[in-house]
Amino acid sequence: MFSVQPQPAVPATAAESAETLCPAEAIVAAENERRPVLIEAIQPAVDGGLYAAKRVLGDLVSVSADLITDGHDLVAGELLILSPEHLRSQPAAGQDGAGGADGAGALIVPLEPLSMDRHGARFLVDALGLWHFTVRAWIDHPATWRRGLQRKLEAGQDVSVELSIGAQLLEGAVARAAGSERALLERAARQLANAAVPVEQRAREALSPELAQLVARYPDRRLATTHAPWLPLRVDRERARFSSWYEMFPRSTGARGQHGSFASAIERLPYIAGMGFDVLYLPPIHPIGHTFRKGKNNQTRASDGDVGSPWAIGAAEGGHKSIHAALGTLEDFERFRRAAESHGLELALDVALQVTPDHPYVHEHPEWFKHRPDGTIQYAENPPKKYQDIYPFDFECDAWRSLWVELKSIFEFWIARGVRIFRVDNPHTKSLGFWRWCLADLSARHPDLIFLAEAFTRPALMHALAKLGFTQSYTYFTWRNTAQEMRQYLKELNAAPVSDFFRPNFWPNTPDILPEHLQHAGRPAFALRLTLAALLSSNYGIYGPAFELMDNAPRPGAEEYVDNEKYELKSWDVEREDSLAPLITRINAIRKENPALQQTALSFHPCDNELLLCFSKHSPGGDNSVLIVINMDPHNPQAGWIDLNDLFPAAGADASAAAALHRRELQLHDLLSDARYLSQGQRLYVRLDPQSAPAHIFRLRRLVRTEHDFDYFV
Amino acid sequence: MFSVQPQPAVPATAAESAETLCPAEAIVAAENERRPVLIEAIQPAVDGGLYAAKRVLGDLVSVSADLITDGHDLVAGELLILSPEHLRSQPAAGQDGAGGADGAGALIVPLEPLSMDRHGARFLVDALGLWHFTVRAWIDHPATWRRGLQRKLEAGQDVSVELSIGAQLLEGAVARAAGSERALLERAARQLANAAVPVEQRAREALSPELAQLVARYPDRRLATTHAPWLPLRVDRERARFSSWYEMFPRSTGARGQHGSFASAIERLPYIAGMGFDVLYLPPIHPIGHTFRKGKNNQTRASDGDVGSPWAIGAAEGGHKSIHAALGTLEDFERFRRAAESHGLELALDVALQVTPDHPYVHEHPEWFKHRPDGTIQYAENPPKKYQDIYPFDFECDAWRSLWVELKSIFEFWIARGVRIFRVDNPHTKSLGFWRWCLADLSARHPDLIFLAEAFTRPALMHALAKLGFTQSYTYFTWRNTAQEMRQYLKELNAAPVSDFFRPNFWPNTPDILPEHLQHAGRPAFALRLTLAALLSSNYGIYGPAFELMDNAPRPGAEEYVDNEKYELKSWDVEREDSLAPLITRINAIRKENPALQQTALSFHPCDNELLLCFSKHSPGGDNSVLIVINMDPHNPQAGWIDLNDLFPAAGADASAAAALHRRELQLHDLLSDARYLSQGQRLYVRLDPQSAPAHIFRLRRLVRTEHDFDYFV
Repeated sequence: MFSVQPQPAVPATAAESAETLCPAEAIVAAENERRPVLIEAIQPAVDGGLYAAKRVLGDLVSVSADLITDGHDLVAGELLILSPEHLRSQPAAGQDGAGGADGAGALIVPLEPLSMDRHGARFLVDALGLWHFTVRAWIDHPATWRRGLQRKLEAGQDVSVELSIGAQLLEGAVARAAGSERALLERAARQLANAAVPVEQRAREALSPELAQLVARYPDRRLATTHAPWLPLRVDRERARFSSWYEMFPRSTGARGQHGSFASAIERLPYIAGMGFDVLYLPPIHPIGHTFRKGKNNQTRASDGDVGSPWAIGAAEGGHKSIHAALGTLEDFERFRRAAESHGLELALDVALQVTPDHPYVHEHPEWFKHRPDGTIQYAENPPKKYQDIYPFDFECDAWRSLWVELKSIFEFWIARGVRIFRVDNPHTKSLGFWRWCLADLSARHPDLIFLAEAFTRPALMHALAKLGFTQSYTYFTWRNTAQEMRQYLKELNAAPVSDFFRPNFWPNTPDILPEHLQHAGRPAFALRLTLAALLSSNYGIYGPAFELMDNAPRPGAEEYVDNEKYELKSWDVEREDSLAPLITRINAIRKENPALQQTALSFHPCDNELLLCFSKHSPGGDNSVLIVINMDPHNPQAGWIDLNDLFPAAGADASAAAALHRRELQLHDLLSDARYLSQGQRLYVRLDPQSAPAHIFRLRRLVRTEHDFDYFV
Repeated sequence: MFSVQPQPAVPATAAESAETLCPAEAIVAAENERRPVLIEAIQPAVDGGLYAAKRVLGDLVSVSADLITDGHDLVAGELLILSPEHLRSQPAAGQDGAGGADGAGALIVPLEPLSMDRHGARFLVDALGLWHFTVRAWIDHPATWRRGLQRKLEAGQDVSVELSIGAQLLEGAVARAAGSERALLERAARQLANAAVPVEQRAREALSPELAQLVARYPDRRLATTHAPWLPLRVDRERARFSSWYEMFPRSTGARGQHGSFASAIERLPYIAGMGFDVLYLPPIHPIGHTFRKGKNNQTRASDGDVGSPWAIGAAEGGHKSIHAALGTLEDFERFRRAAESHGLELALDVALQVTPDHPYVHEHPEWFKHRPDGTIQYAENPPKKYQDIYPFDFECDAWRSLWVELKSIFEFWIARGVRIFRVDNPHTKSLGFWRWCLADLSARHPDLIFLAEAFTRPALMHALAKLGFTQSYTYFTWRNTAQEMRQYLKELNAAPVSDFFRPNFWPNTPDILPEHLQHAGRPAFALRLTLAALLSSNYGIYGPAFELMDNAPRPGAEEYVDNEKYELKSWDVEREDSLAPLITRINAIRKENPALQQTALSFHPCDNELLLCFSKHSPGGDNSVLIVINMDPHNPQAGWIDLNDLFPAAGADASAAAALHRRELQLHDLLSDARYLSQGQRLYVRLDPQSAPAHIFRLRRLVRTEHDFDYFV
């Protein structure tokens, strides 16, 4: 996985096909060829196991594969699992990945047939880090024999020879068994071959479920096929999949006109925690450069007193491992972090791997930068645009190893100070190889780390970063407007293999983006975008207090804020009467109370009004179901009929829920308005006025009939 | 590729992640990590290169891949190609597939950008056998620099330093160049750095297309990424993709009541060739067993004179390498084969790897069979059904290697006698490992072989056989009835990766199958199924003369022929007035004349009458287009409107065709009726009466305006 693109080897097939030009008699099939089962389409697998699929702690991971063999024989198989702990305690037998280890010590879970050739099993991931699994399969001769015996008996055929064959199969199992079960198998084998016992009685004993189970515990794996390669599976903590982010500039928490500090930002924590967020993300907190510092509204020249952009990192007093003097000291930072944690807020730091001309790296390590023929260092540019306040690192420079180790040490510095979440600025403009190496190394040491990639770029590159180790990613949500666009995008995100490696984090706004749709429709637009982000995606975030205070003044003609907080101090009146905070608080509470909303998987339901977006989410265990209808029109009330035919699409457990829906025994409890409705069958009429509510968030409650004279919903 | 399921190795990731638990400073990124381009989603690839994609001789193979890198740099790349000849002449450097060969000597084709990160190139496959290709990519620093220079010039910026940077880049190219071009590059580098020349002039020269092309010929590949593994591509002869099969029993060509022979079958050849078939497939031609021989209509006991099933192979006089005495000698067979070839008919032999109890193998090699405890050999069974006339081979027996070599030698025996096409009977009940090994070996020696898999089984197993080396496969076509079913099935077959490894061969009937839909609607049903098979799939076949003589009498309650030719001699009056032969002849001629019909790729077009199936096929070059409308109802005339909006879906070359359609400058020439119609725009009205024609087969002819006073269609 970590060497994704090794030097090309001569194709193995080439070697072999050349070899096959020798005389026929010299060609003998390899021992491997005799293994009768082919294992295909194993899932979950990202690019055939080149990259890890992602899950979170406590997940029941479903693995499935096609077990293919010729003819009519029954196949048996098992899932082999290596936990991170196993790999730590038994460093690999072969460092070249070609060692002979056969998964000894792996956890084993039997595979069950699903449909036709498909088989599956599930296992619980109870430790963070990199797991590996594979599938092993073989012909189940005892089961095949048992099925044949049964059918022959039913057809009234003589089965005495079959019983002798069964005795031989049991003797094979005896050789593999141990202890008391060995003795049991021995006795059963003798009995099956005992001509003194009537055939009927022997056949009955041969078909006993107990014997079948006993034999199945000692399968003949000599010709078993094991799928290569083992497939990696990264297990993150739950917050990787379910998180509510709040971004804010600590420097804007001071008294009006004053530079804020960690001390003043501590005062804001109860407010943020009170809204129900769990991740507090701070833009860079480091010294800000002076050379070519940007002024208000991104002007190329700063005026006296302009505070500069926090992303212009580095000054004489320090760089990525230092703290902006006005914010405080490292001790102040740690005090702030602990205060945040005491409010249930985990800090996320911003890592922007770039420097200003004033950063100490520039003078101490000129070899990490590109030099122009005129002796100057190459500043950032996207011709004809110049960003003279920023020097990018040259990730391919001759001194790349020392550069990479130092950049990794920036993460390590903050990890040592208790930070476990990083929001990485523009990772798509830094070396992909660096990320692969850096994130793999950090994650191996600290499996509780979370990395959010701020990569607003082309799909293939966004996906590559996710495969290379980023935990979550910003998305195109910010530019998706209509119900149709949302359905299409969510289907993309929820389809394997994307859903196996790419975890979306939906942001209605950021300091860089005030999207068009927030600029013109006032409060209902903000309520709408918040609802969409928080309910479609289990990871979401807002940039506040600009968001909850509904700041929607753009720089003319741009999708950006005017008087952008990136370049100046702002003073926010978070106590404002009209703040969106109460709605945010309610939505975050609903997310916390409903496991269905803590993952991104969903189903859309058709509506005859294209301005209503309807979808449902169900918790993996099926005990929590939420049906959501969102009015995509922030200007007008919208009404329509929703088709709930596929509300409970799965068979089995959900069949009773589907029946309850039809029998009007399903209650739709709107968690926003607290109103309750009884299901009216497959069609549901809804009407939403954006002036009062952006959505219905129906918790689906099933009527429980009791023996008493009252019923209740759960 | 030939070792699909090796023993499991310890996951490489495990080794590395264990390693990363050492102190941070010991961790240094591997040199590979620095390579800045990631190559993903390379196509065509079957299971990531585990199996070969399939093409035919003369194809222009399109390869594409995502070339992903960070930031805004331009990427360049190339396709590396190893022909079968190359691999024969340079046996692999490393037999273990891990050798150090870097594709030296590979053909190189530059990749062109397609869209966003996607790049592609095409190459012609001009030799049969196993090709390999991969993609190599790197940052194109000269092109990136040129783009920046251009933009800076347009913005009026000073570019003198950029010109010096350009001179450095050119000097890099000088070091890689040779001969006169080296001198040219040297001069250009000096000129760019020459301060005595005005900046404007130097910039103009720097941007010259000639210089760009010159530099591009000497790219800096030091940090190039090469995709691993190399991907296999099997190139078959054209008949693998386009073939018209006719199956017949030579023993039924004798005078009434007489056992036919190769001599009598020769008389039938002009008739078969006259219908336009090109493959003549014979059921097994070997001695037929006597023990448990099946009687007429598959009765378990044969009567005197019953000829038995040709698939019950083997008698005292010989087995799979012998010829049934009544058919003739090996010399007669060779005479028949040459006669067939002189009529343009290539022979396909049936290989059924099973024996009767009378087969010489049974006595000479009892170790190749399963023995029951009572000393008997295990006959074939699918309990409670017994097939006592058939012994299957035990592919997993201890003597498997000698068995496999012998079975392969059956193919080699007939290959030595000029046979190049094999129809393999029930390959899905034989070892998959055997097929992988046997077909790879035979195909490497004889790249012109074609293997048709008669595997009527589950999709995963059918696909596995195709991946393991079968050239074509029988399909579910025989049981697909409605337009909706046809659309769905053809879409499955035409979607990658299935279309890359699975070549369908459509059969309306076989000696085993008289499908329900042929039993009840007389001649129109036969015309319909023929048309569907021959026009939907480029490979198709019929079992005749039962098909063209419209034999539709089933064994009551079964989808099988009564008085099945498998168990008795038949006498067919192929000269019958009502024979379907004229229609078959016409359809085969249309297939031969229209390259569009010589591949399975197609587009469906909506029709307001669900009983009309409408689709179009276009030749790869775009110079041959056919629009087909088939009446799926053999009982009634059907009419409807067809929506031709997407008749020419591709942009570019087809835009003019789309315009012609709208301008009524497209002629629809019905190749069945010879009627001609002018296009009426996007909607087309059709009416088909099954009593007169099953389909319209419109050749689309475009009006060519001339300078004379007449126009014509081509």
